[in-house]
Amino acid sequence: MADRPTGRPRTIDPDRVSLVALRLFDERGYDFVSMDEVAAAAGVSRRSLFRLFPTKASLVWGGLDEFAERLTAALDARPADEPARAGLRAAYRTAATFPDAVVETTRHRLRVIRANPTLAREAPRFPGGTEEHLVRFVAEHDGVRADGLAPAVTAAVVIGAATAALRWWAEQDDSRPEDVVDRALRDLS
Amino acid sequence: MADRPTGRPRTIDPDRVSLVALRLFDERGYDFVSMDEVAAAAGVSRRSLFRLFPTKASLVWGGLDEFAERLTAALDARPADEPARAGLRAAYRTAATFPDAVVETTRHRLRVIRANPTLAREAPRFPGGTEEHLVRFVAEHDGVRADGLAPAVTAAVVIGAATAALRWWAEQDDSRPEDVVDRALRDLS
Repeated sequence: MADRPTGRPRTIDPDRVSLVALRLFDERGYDFVSMDEVAAAAGVSRRSLFRLFPTKASLVWGGLDEFAERLTAALDARPADEPARAGLRAAYRTAATFPDAVVETTRHRLRVIRANPTLAREAPRFPGGTEEHLVRFVAEHDGVRADGLAPAVTAAVVIGAATAALRWWAEQDDSRPEDVVDRALRDLS
Repeated sequence: MADRPTGRPRTIDPDRVSLVALRLFDERGYDFVSMDEVAAAAGVSRRSLFRLFPTKASLVWGGLDEFAERLTAALDARPADEPARAGLRAAYRTAATFPDAVVETTRHRLRVIRANPTLAREAPRFPGGTEEHLVRFVAEHDGVRADGLAPAVTAAVVIGAATAALRWWAEQDDSRPEDVVDRALRDLS
């Protein structure tokens, strides 16, 4: 819509902007970095930044949807006769295999969330329907009713273990995130 | 400060106001009940209601602190040589033994949170420090370092299982909440 000056590259990589922003938030504190500073550090205009990320918080929550999508797609691809916990463990390994380009971003993201209780309180647990997807997966693979206690508990236990493992990895560990998640889920399967 | 009319009882029971409010929210939908309607249904003035509960959301989140306090106190009372998971299970049974007077309130509370994704998103996980308390408990009782992967995962697994059990109880079950939590944790201990 707006006039576009020629001769300036206008293709902005949102992954690169996220990395720059989350690195700044992690180093200096989320509350102490403004959107203007993010724009300057990423070398983009304030306007372009807000077009990609309408709020500062959206820079933090960006990667959660992709993770949930990888997880549900991986669950749907598991063999129907596999026990639920084994299938959940395998699907979480797939989901936690972040592309190389976003491993560092993911680490900063998790550290920023943890360091900011206000942000953690606003955290969307999981995109709508993801937990229910896991509950149905458990019920189908273990051959039990989806409205029983067991599938609700199994789904919550696996989500809790994997989430704790990813947070621990972000703070404490230099290995690959999927290996840490797999260690955490091994004892449950 | 303000003039107090004589002859009117001014002692208001916050537990009774919570029950009236949460029952209304559960029956008619949180978004469709105003604070004026809560005040009218509870037979208190708008002013008294806001003195006890500054926001509508605070009517929903009220009971969480007491639960967390019962849980940490119960953990502190466990014998030092008890394995972590057994101690967590016993402490959660104590914490989930809601006083008779608030069992119905708790059920409505959990149902209202579940039915309102916006509210659930705003949910404080646990009062600050509670999860860390569980992690330290696991490390001490299992004789491992508190900054390792295992205590973080065990604490998250137990919190996840107990929370899912309480939510399931609120929706599906007529028995006592502590029995459902105990069933959920039995398979983990």
